Amino acid sequence: MSGIIYGLGVGPGDPELLTLKAWRILRRAAIVAYPAPEEGASFARGIVAQFLSPAQIELPIRIPMETARFPAQAVYDRAAAAIAEHSAAGRDVAVLCQGDPFFYGSFMYLFGRLAERCTVEIVPGVSSLGACAAAAGFPLAARNDALIVLPATLPDDALARRLEACDAAAIIKLGRHFARVRDLLARLGLAGTARYVEHASLANARLLPLDAVDPAAAPYFSMILLHRRGAAWR
Amino acid sequence: MSGIIYGLGVGPGDPELLTLKAWRILRRAAIVAYPAPEEGASFARGIVAQFLSPAQIELPIRIPMETARFPAQAVYDRAAAAIAEHSAAGRDVAVLCQGDPFFYGSFMYLFGRLAERCTVEIVPGVSSLGACAAAAGFPLAARNDALIVLPATLPDDALARRLEACDAAAIIKLGRHFARVRDLLARLGLAGTARYVEHASLANARLLPLDAVDPAAAPYFSMILLHRRGAAWR
Repeated sequence: MSGIIYGLGVGPGDPELLTLKAWRILRRAAIVAYPAPEEGASFARGIVAQFLSPAQIELPIRIPMETARFPAQAVYDRAAAAIAEHSAAGRDVAVLCQGDPFFYGSFMYLFGRLAERCTVEIVPGVSSLGACAAAAGFPLAARNDALIVLPATLPDDALARRLEACDAAAIIKLGRHFARVRDLLARLGLAGTARYVEHASLANARLLPLDAVDPAAAPYFSMILLHRRGAAWR
Repeated sequence: MSGIIYGLGVGPGDPELLTLKAWRILRRAAIVAYPAPEEGASFARGIVAQFLSPAQIELPIRIPMETARFPAQAVYDRAAAAIAEHSAAGRDVAVLCQGDPFFYGSFMYLFGRLAERCTVEIVPGVSSLGACAAAAGFPLAARNDALIVLPATLPDDALARRLEACDAAAIIKLGRHFARVRDLLARLGLAGTARYVEHASLANARLLPLDAVDPAAAPYFSMILLHRRGAAWR
């Protein structure tokens, strides 16, 4: 009998935002795999550290910082092969995914390599989108609203064109793009309702007006939320 | 001491997709409020029924089917007043929200009435978006993708214009709009990669190609997912 490979959403950071299902599967899995930087601790593993046991085999997937496509592809190839081997030997593998596995998560690269030859089950998790909206007290969308999620890595004209086509937006992956996005929103007249959130659900979570954010310090895991009506319930 | 009012995300339907946090708060709350139809059972209450105790006071918020704006507003006015009264008397109130409280949820209408005068805490939940993507084995978005969420209630031209501005889309609230949306996607050349999901995470979940869906039977809680590259990992 082959083991099941789980894409396990572990939520945005607060360990209590794990689902009952992810918690059950995590504690039973023989193998626990997770993305990690080339050196240092894995954020996803940190979320669930208190639920792990020494009897579990850990499989860190160390992704090079190098953004060139091929080195990372080779890392996913090797990780997928190792995970498939555990599955073939009958061992369940929990692959930890920060947030939700299918919402801008790197798990999809493993999924693309494994789904056709192994049994893969996705356990959805609380996404950063829901966590940031909750932290900001900012409902995302209602009724007929079109809600768009935009990576801040897109150029200004692409962001502006897409913002025009929506009622509400979440601009993600801010990091070093913060100042440019802040200035763009001001030019588009959208800065007024915008809220900035970083590290939602964690002890160091912060909610700031755009002009109070230090652009040099905005982390990658931060987000701007905005709504054309000012608030979704209007 | 005032009681805390929780907007409690209880996830898309599978009780195991409750978070540990929602489960803890739910079992301790003196008052459990939830949306319900004018007659019959509440879907949100059904998700967590096994976790409730007879000692808890239940407060169904019966929303009239009538879509005119004012009757529902009066219902929210009365419900907010009752909830605020419990809070003022020191009782914690858990307001059950299917999916995530701030993702197209009716809880925002209570939030708009309560947030300025009471202590309201939002507990994010697994949204229908994550649950449908998981059920369909369809990663939503990656890297620089713009992901849009569109209610099927929008007219064709509004849907078409917004679909043009994105890489990936989730079309929600299909119900009686299914056939129109299916035909629109065919005209736009987007039907090929589209997946239809209904009742994600529940025992009666179904994943179908668009042309296998009976348009007369598509429930309100169904969704079409699509990606211009066919799959987000490409």
